[in-house]
Amino acid sequence: MALEGLSPTDRTRIRRERERAADDRADLRALLDEAVVCHLGVVDAGGVRVVPTLAAPRWDGPDPYGTLYLHGSVASQALMAAPLDRICATVTLLDGLVLARSGFMHSVNYRSAVVYGVPRVVDDPDEKDLALTLMVDHVVAGRAGHLRAPTRKELAATSVLALSLHEASVKQRNGDPEDEPWDVDPQVWAGVVPLRLRADDVVTAAGVEAHVPEHVNAAVRSRFPPA
Amino acid sequence: MALEGLSPTDRTRIRRERERAADDRADLRALLDEAVVCHLGVVDAGGVRVVPTLAAPRWDGPDPYGTLYLHGSVASQALMAAPLDRICATVTLLDGLVLARSGFMHSVNYRSAVVYGVPRVVDDPDEKDLALTLMVDHVVAGRAGHLRAPTRKELAATSVLALSLHEASVKQRNGDPEDEPWDVDPQVWAGVVPLRLRADDVVTAAGVEAHVPEHVNAAVRSRFPPA
Repeated sequence: MALEGLSPTDRTRIRRERERAADDRADLRALLDEAVVCHLGVVDAGGVRVVPTLAAPRWDGPDPYGTLYLHGSVASQALMAAPLDRICATVTLLDGLVLARSGFMHSVNYRSAVVYGVPRVVDDPDEKDLALTLMVDHVVAGRAGHLRAPTRKELAATSVLALSLHEASVKQRNGDPEDEPWDVDPQVWAGVVPLRLRADDVVTAAGVEAHVPEHVNAAVRSRFPPA
Repeated sequence: MALEGLSPTDRTRIRRERERAADDRADLRALLDEAVVCHLGVVDAGGVRVVPTLAAPRWDGPDPYGTLYLHGSVASQALMAAPLDRICATVTLLDGLVLARSGFMHSVNYRSAVVYGVPRVVDDPDEKDLALTLMVDHVVAGRAGHLRAPTRKELAATSVLALSLHEASVKQRNGDPEDEPWDVDPQVWAGVVPLRLRADDVVTAAGVEAHVPEHVNAAVRSRFPPA
């Protein structure tokens, strides 16, 4: 129901569909390692606002629960308008369509993590550099090592938020449709359409003569494996 | 900048990166027709909460802007805790990884719609039936016509919210990385990794003897085309 080793707060205790709440911190880790985009909810004078932004987890830092680094400039309009108040970061991966015998039991297979907390603005240059490296390597492992270092001006122009993974919960559904017994008949089809984010062939930018580097091909094959 | 034919409110006017704000209602329609999941932001006593839920658009109803039907029971914990106040529904599709020459210019290609409004609880049984049919057909076109009708009890056990698409904005990025001129060199590779949600082979549920129906295969091929 709650994450292993955590004292779930009232907000992260899953009250509905407890069987869908994952009981393992490993699920949180796998989900945040896989997802690229998170949806950040903030409240400002006009009410609630949900913005997509890039998020990369850090597991080896000083926070024993782990840290989620959020790309602040993508979400800057929302974050600048709001004081650095409690926010909610939600990450969802859609794993399949669940086609049941009845419309009522149609569903989706998914994994979703919800994290609450007051984010910390990362202003230490070393931590900011590390966070941005993690973000680049989060999408293409090893890529940051092939790039020039960021300039001071670039670091200053980027805002990064750190959100502790202390107050986090995971919810998921997988497997077959669950129909009422009276709807089940071997002659009536039901099943699941598995879905997965996949990469198409890498597109080299206009004007580039170099071939796609091997670190890009290898990382893409590993992160977005072909069917 | 704003959606065609709309007077954007202060909240949906895109103040940052105006070039990324799509100027066409057609973009909103294409995005909502494609996306399965939306992230719903609500505010309750404890603060902001972002929950994923299923969303299906309706374009031919009485609302000239269109309606987004939200599957209330998925989001019920959040919606029940909050009064039916202004909410924010955000839909994001990740279209690619933008691998620039510098870490600073790394980005993603994406399309995202943000909708604000006070949702209406759908309590008319005919509209609820229609909304649930739209939700089933939204993921697999034509599927609802192959299912038994929902029972009164099922309809009563499902909550559906309707959100007008009046106050909506779309933001997107596509195309090549945009590097600073001094980083561009034909011998330095840069490019885009296109991403797309794809379907793997349909998995028939345990105990079913029937073959995958043609309406399922056809809808999946059309909605999640192979590479």
